[in-house]
Amino acid sequence: MLDAGLICHLGVIADGVPRVLPTGYGRLGDILYLHGSSANATFLAGGGQQVCVTVTHLDGLVCARSVFNHSMNYRSAMIFGVARLVTDPDERTLALRTITEHLTPGQWSYARQPTPKELAATSALALPLTEASVKIRAGGPSDEPEDYAADVWAGVVPVTTTFGEPEPDAALRPGIAVPGHIRHRS
Amino acid sequence: MLDAGLICHLGVIADGVPRVLPTGYGRLGDILYLHGSSANATFLAGGGQQVCVTVTHLDGLVCARSVFNHSMNYRSAMIFGVARLVTDPDERTLALRTITEHLTPGQWSYARQPTPKELAATSALALPLTEASVKIRAGGPSDEPEDYAADVWAGVVPVTTTFGEPEPDAALRPGIAVPGHIRHRS
Repeated sequence: MLDAGLICHLGVIADGVPRVLPTGYGRLGDILYLHGSSANATFLAGGGQQVCVTVTHLDGLVCARSVFNHSMNYRSAMIFGVARLVTDPDERTLALRTITEHLTPGQWSYARQPTPKELAATSALALPLTEASVKIRAGGPSDEPEDYAADVWAGVVPVTTTFGEPEPDAALRPGIAVPGHIRHRS
Repeated sequence: MLDAGLICHLGVIADGVPRVLPTGYGRLGDILYLHGSSANATFLAGGGQQVCVTVTHLDGLVCARSVFNHSMNYRSAMIFGVARLVTDPDERTLALRTITEHLTPGQWSYARQPTPKELAATSALALPLTEASVKIRAGGPSDEPEDYAADVWAGVVPVTTTFGEPEPDAALRPGIAVPGHIRHRS
């Protein structure tokens, strides 16, 4: 489920109040790496603190015969734990590689790799995948027995997330084709 | 931005730690209603407390000439404030109607409306839309000047969320057509 997602929502307590940040992420073995900027105080507040990371895939709108039984088909994973701010330069490189390869597999070795200055401007949190809660809702509506006789349509409207055709940068030099690892992402 | 989203991520502090829940929502004027179950203690913990609600639309993967300038195109709205647990039965009906109509406009008057018992099993939080932070990233990659000469493809892979063809419930009575408000959602 984590490997199929693109972004997660990171929940932290900053100045005593909850904050929910959309962030990129990637999984390496039993560690989830989260991507942030070194200038984002809310993101940095997660370091050394209890955080909650939620990845949600919405799969469909479930239309029932009653409003009460309306629902959504979804898969969500919630991961809890104390996040660690990655400070070691080698691990920071590893974290950035993991996050990059999660979003666009093959891109790390294709694009220019980070300079020490760029690495210093990147922040990463590491969260051990030890405590998690997974919820899944799939299938058609569950209606009350007396509602099945109603003259009401019931079923599922599928929701899908898809990649479109790659759109070249306006400043792209002529003659550079879309590489296979990006073409196949779409 | 709120009106175009399907689900939000609700951040609350429960037992001293952050929790991020995916939930349905709907906007009525300056109030955001969030949908939960009366059996969900984490959701209920948001009542009377400071919460953060984030709605994120992912629009594209931004492939740059350097790993560091990789990015995502997205729109996100973060709403902060003290949420109020909706206890008045009339407002609870209004909240459920707002949330239902947000997900599937036209459904409230089409499906069977809730009984008092069903309403009691529903919970809603009301959050005033007074404090919010909106972030948008759009367009192509921003590369370092020296990277534009590189022999590396750069551009955007669009990400879109779409509704598919409605799939009828296996128990649907014969002869009930997909109503227009659901057919047009897809």
